[in-house]
Amino acid sequence: MENSYVLYHDQIIKNGSIPVDPEDRGYLFGDGIYEVVFVYDSKPFAFDEHFDRFVQSANKLELALPYDIPTFKHLTDELIKKNNVQNGMVYIQMTRGVAPRNHLYERNMQSVVTGYAKSVTLESIAQSHANGIQTYLTEDIRWLRCDIKSLNLLGNVMAKRKAADYDCQEAIQHREGMVTEGSSSNVFIVKNGTLQTHPASNLILNGITRQIVLQVAKELQIPILEEAFLIDDLLGADEVFITSTTMEVTPVVKLKGQQEQSYKIGPVTSELQKHFKAKIQNSASTLKS
Amino acid sequence: MENSYVLYHDQIIKNGSIPVDPEDRGYLFGDGIYEVVFVYDSKPFAFDEHFDRFVQSANKLELALPYDIPTFKHLTDELIKKNNVQNGMVYIQMTRGVAPRNHLYERNMQSVVTGYAKSVTLESIAQSHANGIQTYLTEDIRWLRCDIKSLNLLGNVMAKRKAADYDCQEAIQHREGMVTEGSSSNVFIVKNGTLQTHPASNLILNGITRQIVLQVAKELQIPILEEAFLIDDLLGADEVFITSTTMEVTPVVKLKGQQEQSYKIGPVTSELQKHFKAKIQNSASTLKS
Repeated sequence: MENSYVLYHDQIIKNGSIPVDPEDRGYLFGDGIYEVVFVYDSKPFAFDEHFDRFVQSANKLELALPYDIPTFKHLTDELIKKNNVQNGMVYIQMTRGVAPRNHLYERNMQSVVTGYAKSVTLESIAQSHANGIQTYLTEDIRWLRCDIKSLNLLGNVMAKRKAADYDCQEAIQHREGMVTEGSSSNVFIVKNGTLQTHPASNLILNGITRQIVLQVAKELQIPILEEAFLIDDLLGADEVFITSTTMEVTPVVKLKGQQEQSYKIGPVTSELQKHFKAKIQNSASTLKS
Repeated sequence: MENSYVLYHDQIIKNGSIPVDPEDRGYLFGDGIYEVVFVYDSKPFAFDEHFDRFVQSANKLELALPYDIPTFKHLTDELIKKNNVQNGMVYIQMTRGVAPRNHLYERNMQSVVTGYAKSVTLESIAQSHANGIQTYLTEDIRWLRCDIKSLNLLGNVMAKRKAADYDCQEAIQHREGMVTEGSSSNVFIVKNGTLQTHPASNLILNGITRQIVLQVAKELQIPILEEAFLIDDLLGADEVFITSTTMEVTPVVKLKGQQEQSYKIGPVTSELQKHFKAKIQNSASTLKS
C-alpha cells in the first residue's frame, strides 16, 4: 500500500506493524463490519451518515464498539492527515475480536478495529462519469441480511469477478428476476421521468450515496419510486445508473449477460450527477469554513 | 489456545508467531475455505474425503492450492504429532491471499494456509450421544452457495447464537418452511423406518459424516430418501438426529422455536451411531496396522 500509517485499535501506527491474530473472528468467520468514507479536499464526506450505519451494522451483529463515534471521527481525520490524503478514501473495519474458534460467540468480546487511508486519482472516476460503464446481469446469491455492511462478501466478490470476465466494471444482481443492487453499488432506473430503485430492505445495502441521491431527487422534484423492479423494467429503462461511495453517480451504458441492452446517458442521470457533486463541494467548503 | 504448534504456509511453527496481514482477503472479504478433520487415536479420520471437498471448495472459488494434497496430509500428521493430539481435531484454512483491498480478485494470487490441532475431551460428546441435544428452529438466511465450505459464516454464527439463547446446542434452519441443515451440522429425520435428509445441493454443505452415515444406512439396508422435507415432517418425525465431524451422530430430543416438539432417541439413530463409531474404530486400526 502507498499509505504509510494505519489504524489499529485506537492508535495510528506505521503500516506493516498490525499483528492480526489467526484467531480473530474476522479471519475465521468474516465476523465483522466495515465502512468506506470518501475524502474530498482532505475532508471525509458524509462521515456521520457512514458511522450511523456503522453503529446499525454493529447492533445487528451484537458487536461492541470499543470507543465512541467522535473518537472514530478523530482517528479518521488523523488517518487522512498523517497520510496526506487530498482526494481518496478511508477504510475502517471492526471485527468481533479474538477467541478460540467456535461458531457460538460470547457477547463480552473485545472488538478489533483496523483501518487505512489512501489517495485515489479522480481521473478514472471522471472518465466513468463522462462515458458510463458496462454492467453484467447475474443472479444474486447473497444472504438475506445484505442490509448489514459485513465482511461476508464472497457473493459480491464472485459477481464482480464474473462482471470483469465480460469486460464490465460492475455486476447488477437479481433474485429470481427482481433486480436488487450492484455488487458494490445501488442500481437506479429512470422511466418516463420517474426514478426507481429497490427499497431499503434486508436485500440491499442502503448506500449513503443512494440516500443522498434520493434526497437530491426530492429537492429537484423528480418523482421517486422506491419499489423493486424486474429485469424487464431494467431492459426497458430510459436511463440506468449506479451509485456508491467510490463511484458517486455513474451512468450505465451497457447491460450484458443473458439479456443485453444499450443505454444513452440521460438528462435525469446527468442532473443528479451534477447536484451530487455540488453537495460534495458545499460540504467541503462548509467543513473548511 | 492449548496447542503450541500451528501451521503457516507449509511450515509448522510455534503458536503466536503467525503474522496475518490486515490485507489478507480472508480478513477483508471472508475470501477463503476451511476443513475440520477429527482425530481418533492420533489419526485423522476420513482425511481423503475432507480434502476432496477442500479441493472442490477451492475450485468453486478459483482458489489456487499452494501445494498438493499429500503435502496437506503430511502437515496434518505433523500438527497432530507435534501437539500430541490423541483425540481431537485439526483445522486447516486457506485464503486467497494478500492484496490491496478490491472486490475484484486476480487469479494468480498466492494463497495463505493456516491451521492448528487441538485435543478434545470426548466426555461431553459422549453425553450428547447418550442423552441427545436440544435444537432451535430458525430461518435459513445464508447465501445460495452453502455447498462451498467458505469463511462466510455469519449466517451460521447468528443461528448458533440464537439457538444458545434458547438453551439449545444447535440450530435447525429452514428456507420458507423447507428444512435445510443445522448451523454446523446436517439434519436427518426417520419416519416409518425411512431415513430422510436434504439432498446435496447448493443449499447445504455435504457433510463428510452425512456421506458416511448414508453409506452406513445403505449397508444396513435402511431405506433412504435424499429429498427436502418440511417443518411439518420434522415435527411429525419418529426420530431426528444431526451429523457433523465434531458431533458424529447426535440424537435430537427437543425442537424449540415457533413450533415445539419432543423426540425419543430411536432405534435407527442408535444403530447408525453404533455403526459410525465402528467405522471410526476400523479406520483407526487399519491406519495403525
